Amino acid sequence: MRMVDLIEKKRNGGRLAAEEIQFFVDGYVDGSVPDYQAAAMLMAIWFRGMDKQETTDLTLRMVESGDKIDLSSIPGVKVDKHSTGGVADTTTLIVGPLVAAAGGHVAKMSGRGLGHTGGTLDKLESIPGLSIDQSMERFAEIVGSCGVSVIGQTGNLVPADKKLYSLRDVTGTIDNVSLIAGSIMSKKIAAGADKIVLDVKTGSGAFMQDLAGAEELARMMVEIGNLAGRETHALVTDMNQPLGNAVGNALEVEEAIQILRGEAGGGSSSAAGTSDDGGVSSSAAGTSDAGGVSSSAAGTSDAGGTEGAAAEGDLKHVSFELAKMMLVLGGVCKDEDEAQQKLDNAIASGEALERFGCMIEMQGGDRRVIDNTNLLPRAGEVVVAEAHASGYVSAMDTAQLGMSALLLGAGRSKKDDVIDPAVGYWMKRRLGDWVEKGEALAEFHVNSRSNFEESLKRFQDAIRISREPGEAVKVIYKRY
Amino acid sequence: MRMVDLIEKKRNGGRLAAEEIQFFVDGYVDGSVPDYQAAAMLMAIWFRGMDKQETTDLTLRMVESGDKIDLSSIPGVKVDKHSTGGVADTTTLIVGPLVAAAGGHVAKMSGRGLGHTGGTLDKLESIPGLSIDQSMERFAEIVGSCGVSVIGQTGNLVPADKKLYSLRDVTGTIDNVSLIAGSIMSKKIAAGADKIVLDVKTGSGAFMQDLAGAEELARMMVEIGNLAGRETHALVTDMNQPLGNAVGNALEVEEAIQILRGEAGGGSSSAAGTSDDGGVSSSAAGTSDAGGVSSSAAGTSDAGGTEGAAAEGDLKHVSFELAKMMLVLGGVCKDEDEAQQKLDNAIASGEALERFGCMIEMQGGDRRVIDNTNLLPRAGEVVVAEAHASGYVSAMDTAQLGMSALLLGAGRSKKDDVIDPAVGYWMKRRLGDWVEKGEALAEFHVNSRSNFEESLKRFQDAIRISREPGEAVKVIYKRY
Repeated sequence: MRMVDLIEKKRNGGRLAAEEIQFFVDGYVDGSVPDYQAAAMLMAIWFRGMDKQETTDLTLRMVESGDKIDLSSIPGVKVDKHSTGGVADTTTLIVGPLVAAAGGHVAKMSGRGLGHTGGTLDKLESIPGLSIDQSMERFAEIVGSCGVSVIGQTGNLVPADKKLYSLRDVTGTIDNVSLIAGSIMSKKIAAGADKIVLDVKTGSGAFMQDLAGAEELARMMVEIGNLAGRETHALVTDMNQPLGNAVGNALEVEEAIQILRGEAGGGSSSAAGTSDDGGVSSSAAGTSDAGGVSSSAAGTSDAGGTEGAAAEGDLKHVSFELAKMMLVLGGVCKDEDEAQQKLDNAIASGEALERFGCMIEMQGGDRRVIDNTNLLPRAGEVVVAEAHASGYVSAMDTAQLGMSALLLGAGRSKKDDVIDPAVGYWMKRRLGDWVEKGEALAEFHVNSRSNFEESLKRFQDAIRISREPGEAVKVIYKRY
Repeated sequence: MRMVDLIEKKRNGGRLAAEEIQFFVDGYVDGSVPDYQAAAMLMAIWFRGMDKQETTDLTLRMVESGDKIDLSSIPGVKVDKHSTGGVADTTTLIVGPLVAAAGGHVAKMSGRGLGHTGGTLDKLESIPGLSIDQSMERFAEIVGSCGVSVIGQTGNLVPADKKLYSLRDVTGTIDNVSLIAGSIMSKKIAAGADKIVLDVKTGSGAFMQDLAGAEELARMMVEIGNLAGRETHALVTDMNQPLGNAVGNALEVEEAIQILRGEAGGGSSSAAGTSDDGGVSSSAAGTSDAGGVSSSAAGTSDAGGTEGAAAEGDLKHVSFELAKMMLVLGGVCKDEDEAQQKLDNAIASGEALERFGCMIEMQGGDRRVIDNTNLLPRAGEVVVAEAHASGYVSAMDTAQLGMSALLLGAGRSKKDDVIDPAVGYWMKRRLGDWVEKGEALAEFHVNSRSNFEESLKRFQDAIRISREPGEAVKVIYKRY
């Protein structure tokens, strides 16, 4: 077999057989297929695509390139959950404890943030003392005790994907549905999941901005998972605005705790918490008040048990949907109604919060944060970002909102950038909300004024205020 | 400027600006653009194409990557001639002396054969003593004295093309019209031509097998040449069968000499020279007879001055057309009629043959070959390849005919393979000819029986004999 023949076959629109994909993947990993031939193949795949069988073959061959996690020591059906990434997407921190409290087992390996998207590991590490580096034995032990543990990747999982992803990044071949699907699914399968629930984001802050692309990606991943013998379901959910209201690592942990407490929905449409004074208001952060204002802003208007997704808040809504899918898929609940009941109980009884505390403690963290979020890192200053005009919040460039948080210090533009866990902002308005000129669009938690200026400009540019409310966005577009 | 952005621009169907092409070409030559990014760009170009301005920019930037030949010491307008390559395409050896005899100047740098196509330098080197390595001073001197010299490339011409071509070869990006056109035209321009005549082959032995592709390539190269200030014209000519009857280096020199002598047309439709005995006939080569049989086979039926292209032989016909274009383009003749007259005179007077002899002598070769082709290297044995059935010769896989000669030892599969100048074969039938079972399709000139078996099988498989004569082929399809 010669690589150039395989490149030409794909270039001409042919189907690659399993052994041809194996030749490519294995050869690229062992160096017998050079970078330039892999690059040409990737570009040919970008143009011609791969069908679901080719994509599954690619995925499974990439899995074979490295270690595979054995979760068999953890009891029950291991249902993994994966989000394609976005802004204020804190679902893992909510879903994990919820599912655990409802009787499931969540043994999850998560990732870090890069660019405009946040990462679960970074959020968890904002909890004082918590370590995401755990041995497999300890990981199983924590899941056994708490029902949930979220750690960093151990072992050398899917080196083929690491190598191919680096190449795609510099050759203009990132945004192909088969390559994206193979990259995601290979890691899920190698990480030992029995079944998989996917949250594919669409909209201005998503990798797949257009709905059709997100749907195609969701379908492709579901097909790969099922062909690979891992039953897979997916949601396509909205990322036209931050999912929750908190953007920034410690702030997002705080919002997750509020939801687990039953206090807030996160990402709700409300005009709560507006700033009273006309100028930029600034108050000392790190006091219970600063945290409290933010918290009540996102929470008060809808924490009272009003029915419906919008009233619940988008973050809570998506988290509950994902948790229900995981519980049914894992065989813990017979249907989603039963799952909903168990989740409501898990919140009301405090069991979900308790499971989060259990996990924090067993991973070395200060579990008192679940009762006192002021123990989380706090920024030196809280500054209000005001609306420059009166009108409806009609559109957000959510990727730029993520970049705004990154500029503040909450994210990474390069892999080895150091993040500031305390900084970020609380959104005070959501799409469709009315805002008066001078009212708060967000409260920024700031440690550096120069970072803030740059971040604020990006933030303001990313939010459109119009006389018309703009197109309504759904929270959940599709289920597969 | 970032290479990945340029790749994505082209990938998405954008036009590359001159400075973007410069960034790519210069960066690839100096190593700042790595192989894998160049490979991705080439594949994106393969899919999206380049317009004539982009292709011209690419061509001219590649020219700048290396030395440029200065032919200003050679008097007159230097018209270069280029064939895209094929089997039994001996036009350069005929056109050069013809144009010189008619008053033009031909200062030509040629190439070697690779794969199924022959190379002019290899053919010339079959002439005892002749050297294709000449200094620029000597080159000018030979052109000054003889009107023609054909040498190997001197200097470091178009290193960008060398590097890009090597990459294209292993990444499935050879067959793109802009990349092919840029590769050819950059070398022509760097080699110092004032004006250019192109012979673009089409058919089963051509690089561009389909006529539409060959026409597109011809048009693209004419446009590049003209945009680059080098007036360019092109023919699209047939390569559905070997152009001449001789395939193999010394044999092709012999056929060129026959045409320059006015004895033969090369590549004529005739049933001359059939073998009498029923089995494989074999006679000692190296005698005047063996050469004579071959020579008369190709020659006798049409050397008598019959009118018309077919009667003249395809090789002579194409050579005359190219020579006329060169004479008119170079300002030596006012029109093709005058040029035709001069060419006829050049043959009849012996002047064309004399110019070839002059060049051979000044390049160190044995000029007596023009009077006695038995001084050329001779194979040990001549073996007839017989028709397995009676019928019309209805199709030839000309590339495979070239490979048949290669297997005999006449060509190279790798750049550093050593060729045997003596071996090859004389075709005894052309497309449309009738052949009886057992009659000769060709006479093989052989130095190794084991090579011969392999070669003969390839040859027989490449020739289709049918009850119907097959589609008629033209010799010249288009003029630009």
